[in-house]
Amino acid sequence: MQKIKCILFDVFGTVVDWRESIASEASLLGKKYKINGNWYEFADKWRNAYNTEIQSVNQGKRNWISVDDIHMERLETLLEEYKFPKLEKEKKISFNQSWHRLKPWPDSVEGLQRLKSKYIIAPLSNGNMSLLTNMGKYSNLPWDAIISAELSTKYKPDPSVYQLGAKLMGCKTSETLMVAAHKFDLIGALNAGLLAAMVIRPKEFGERKADIDNDTRWEYYSKDFNELADQLNCK
Amino acid sequence: MQKIKCILFDVFGTVVDWRESIASEASLLGKKYKINGNWYEFADKWRNAYNTEIQSVNQGKRNWISVDDIHMERLETLLEEYKFPKLEKEKKISFNQSWHRLKPWPDSVEGLQRLKSKYIIAPLSNGNMSLLTNMGKYSNLPWDAIISAELSTKYKPDPSVYQLGAKLMGCKTSETLMVAAHKFDLIGALNAGLLAAMVIRPKEFGERKADIDNDTRWEYYSKDFNELADQLNCK
Repeated sequence: MQKIKCILFDVFGTVVDWRESIASEASLLGKKYKINGNWYEFADKWRNAYNTEIQSVNQGKRNWISVDDIHMERLETLLEEYKFPKLEKEKKISFNQSWHRLKPWPDSVEGLQRLKSKYIIAPLSNGNMSLLTNMGKYSNLPWDAIISAELSTKYKPDPSVYQLGAKLMGCKTSETLMVAAHKFDLIGALNAGLLAAMVIRPKEFGERKADIDNDTRWEYYSKDFNELADQLNCK
Repeated sequence: MQKIKCILFDVFGTVVDWRESIASEASLLGKKYKINGNWYEFADKWRNAYNTEIQSVNQGKRNWISVDDIHMERLETLLEEYKFPKLEKEKKISFNQSWHRLKPWPDSVEGLQRLKSKYIIAPLSNGNMSLLTNMGKYSNLPWDAIISAELSTKYKPDPSVYQLGAKLMGCKTSETLMVAAHKFDLIGALNAGLLAAMVIRPKEFGERKADIDNDTRWEYYSKDFNELADQLNCK
């Protein structure tokens, strides 16, 4: 067994419940403007922009664009689609920053604290540095550092993102464990030479099925961060 | 008065007392090998490598090299000069990482906690990311993120370092305050469009004179981090 020194975490879906948080902020905005809508669907549509645009960046079809800017592009479309009145720029920026205020799953903060007692812990997310920093502050995520794909100008699952993450933390890829609730992300980490741990988040997408299957390639498989901390013998 | 959103901190000398910490670790190593030496002088010589090499990088005379690697280069010379026996690689790496274990000035942690309650706080140091991350963990520095010149592959006082720091924190340079005990660093920050605060550390260099003069260009001038927190109306 390799000696793990550093644990990197996917954030959206793995550490925080983006769907519930975004649906809740969208619902408040809807109420304010007396607009009815399915706000989970709104959240899903907003999230989809991210999925398509990060692929475009990695495929070289478009230049680097931050996740904040991807969110803002799609927000403009969604506000029209849901028939919001024209909002001031400051209001749009503030609403776009709902993605900086995502709430952790119930076990996340305690589990991270336990893991931090023994390992260097940092996010390794496609979210930009300021998004991750603000979210850490807002939700009391006890990160030792913040690492974003923004520093690679490539998005996960490009191997360079994981390799730069390990390097910036002063660790070999073989000493670095990637934690995620998504198979594509863990496979990306393995392709880059890291170890992989799946923490399942069955409710991430509501009714839609999440990745919950175990796999011989995962070093650890846990139902939440506290179970992962148990498996790694953290107090 | 501009609205400050983010405060970036020089680290060596400003947040931590590198000279006392390094002299203390060197003295322990000396005892172990029954070597007498002036360990403050040892610390100063080690630190000097940093001063000359970061200039070489910024002047384009040598390619990017991390502060850890600069320290290791000079350590090899110093171990010979002080007549240490030939040390194993692992021992040299561990001693070189004395720079990851620098102790904060007595007011640093409390002052940072107070400033953090109101502002985003991060180091903006020439030390590499892993050095700063390990030091933050070792010395309980409550950073919201870690920012290093390593991300710019230029060293302070190059303006790009300060500008990238503000950008990664999602702030305009005019919303970002640079805190340092060194005039050259604050002038670098001003040249990059940031605001500047001097916190004096008169004992940084022992008998040698530190920068302690006030200047009309500094937005704030404080004797320690608690006084800066008072001036910024932090609880």
